[in-house]
Amino acid sequence: MTNPILSMNQATIKYADLRQTLDTLTAAGYQSVGLWREPVEAVGVKEAVKMVADSGLRVSTMCRGGFFTMPEGDDRRASIDDNRKLIEETAAFGCKVLVLVVGGLPAGSKDLIGARARISDALAELESDALAAGVTLAIEPLHPMYCTDRACVSTLGQALDIAAPFDPKAVGVTVDTFHIFWDPQVLDSIARAGREGRIATYQVCDYRTPFEKDVLLSRHYMGEGVIDFKSLTEAVAATGWRGDIECEIFNQAVWDTPFDQVAARVSDAFDKEVAPYWPVQA
Amino acid sequence: MTNPILSMNQATIKYADLRQTLDTLTAAGYQSVGLWREPVEAVGVKEAVKMVADSGLRVSTMCRGGFFTMPEGDDRRASIDDNRKLIEETAAFGCKVLVLVVGGLPAGSKDLIGARARISDALAELESDALAAGVTLAIEPLHPMYCTDRACVSTLGQALDIAAPFDPKAVGVTVDTFHIFWDPQVLDSIARAGREGRIATYQVCDYRTPFEKDVLLSRHYMGEGVIDFKSLTEAVAATGWRGDIECEIFNQAVWDTPFDQVAARVSDAFDKEVAPYWPVQA
Repeated sequence: MTNPILSMNQATIKYADLRQTLDTLTAAGYQSVGLWREPVEAVGVKEAVKMVADSGLRVSTMCRGGFFTMPEGDDRRASIDDNRKLIEETAAFGCKVLVLVVGGLPAGSKDLIGARARISDALAELESDALAAGVTLAIEPLHPMYCTDRACVSTLGQALDIAAPFDPKAVGVTVDTFHIFWDPQVLDSIARAGREGRIATYQVCDYRTPFEKDVLLSRHYMGEGVIDFKSLTEAVAATGWRGDIECEIFNQAVWDTPFDQVAARVSDAFDKEVAPYWPVQA
Repeated sequence: MTNPILSMNQATIKYADLRQTLDTLTAAGYQSVGLWREPVEAVGVKEAVKMVADSGLRVSTMCRGGFFTMPEGDDRRASIDDNRKLIEETAAFGCKVLVLVVGGLPAGSKDLIGARARISDALAELESDALAAGVTLAIEPLHPMYCTDRACVSTLGQALDIAAPFDPKAVGVTVDTFHIFWDPQVLDSIARAGREGRIATYQVCDYRTPFEKDVLLSRHYMGEGVIDFKSLTEAVAATGWRGDIECEIFNQAVWDTPFDQVAARVSDAFDKEVAPYWPVQA
């Protein structure tokens, strides 16, 4: 039986459209899904909301907003507007978490400090929208190998520092094992995230080397790499945070596997590597 | 003219033997070299010491000791003994810095915390040898993408925490731009390293994405990537640390370039990207 708190992020079966995603997950006994905007917008948000409602699945997160490290100008305005639109789309599903991949260095820039300051500026612009919609913007620290081209927020502690000035209902953090397990301060940072009420989502997948040819696609099923899910999962559980735990894997071999097999495999890996360390809910 | 404080790490011209390395650098007007043990041991330490003395070059660092994260047993004893031998070899050149790549997870292990504890254990064993030889063991934090298979010390702050219980003459840190530029705390950590007297060597090269096929070989000439050498170099200079600044590049295309061209190119890149931010010595 698929664990009721396990959510599968849609990107784990990237080539499935929304219909196939929902059918795969409901057939496999999932109760929760993490959605991506592209397959949602491919059918239209209104229709997608109806499809998801009919499926009975909860929506654990919407992926993904962010990409607002560029300087002021048309591109930045377009990004802020796009994030506002995404906040609305997230809320339309009754989903409370919009994951943010904040962006790396703008083209030609070497100024990480400036890029990071512009993240704070963007959050200040978006905070009231997030509060009005009941959506938490979940800053995702990405592994430092993605710092310059994808997300110049690299540690959970840094994400919490950036989130600190904002209402925890509006700005939280994404706790993703792949991105943060290496951090010598990870357990303390998870505890801090809990204390500060900032955990918006807990995402799991594994890490191993050598990397796949594309380092972005180097995420693996839990148990196939070197991450100690016990310590991380227990740390999240100890904060008191309770929510659907999402498995998100970007990996060409996984993408090339039939969807139902992936759904079953994720469930098995979760049961073996994560569930034993999570309190059973009454 | 090649800057008198510029040292070229021998691995930048990996296919050069010791003779060729020394000839290349002296012909290019360098005054300092970072040595690797393999080419040194290929000619024998005694002969190598004579060759380097005859060249007139200073030896900025010896690379590299470490790799002692494994649990107690024969392999660990062999590693500790090997590090003792390396401390002696380093001292034989009148060199005061042995760079440490500490090691990743032992095979089959997922216990980063345990691996890190064994680094401290190893340093405790080696401290007196280092002091006796007048050699500083320079813990090198490596970029987190190498955390599990090469060095589970990933930030300068973490390296300083590990170094803290030991005499700064015995245990210091390597400040390498490639590995630490992404760290949101990097400038504070460099200042702390200076305050605590832990800077043993400052190494420069650039970083860019996408990575080379082998992520280990993704180091570039200064100016060819996204690292802001101004802020990092000024931060190191502000600590008051003065020493030879070493350029270390692992990159197949660089290795395939004639040695003299590499030496000239490194010198040019240093003059343009690093030297302007370093105090001119009287």
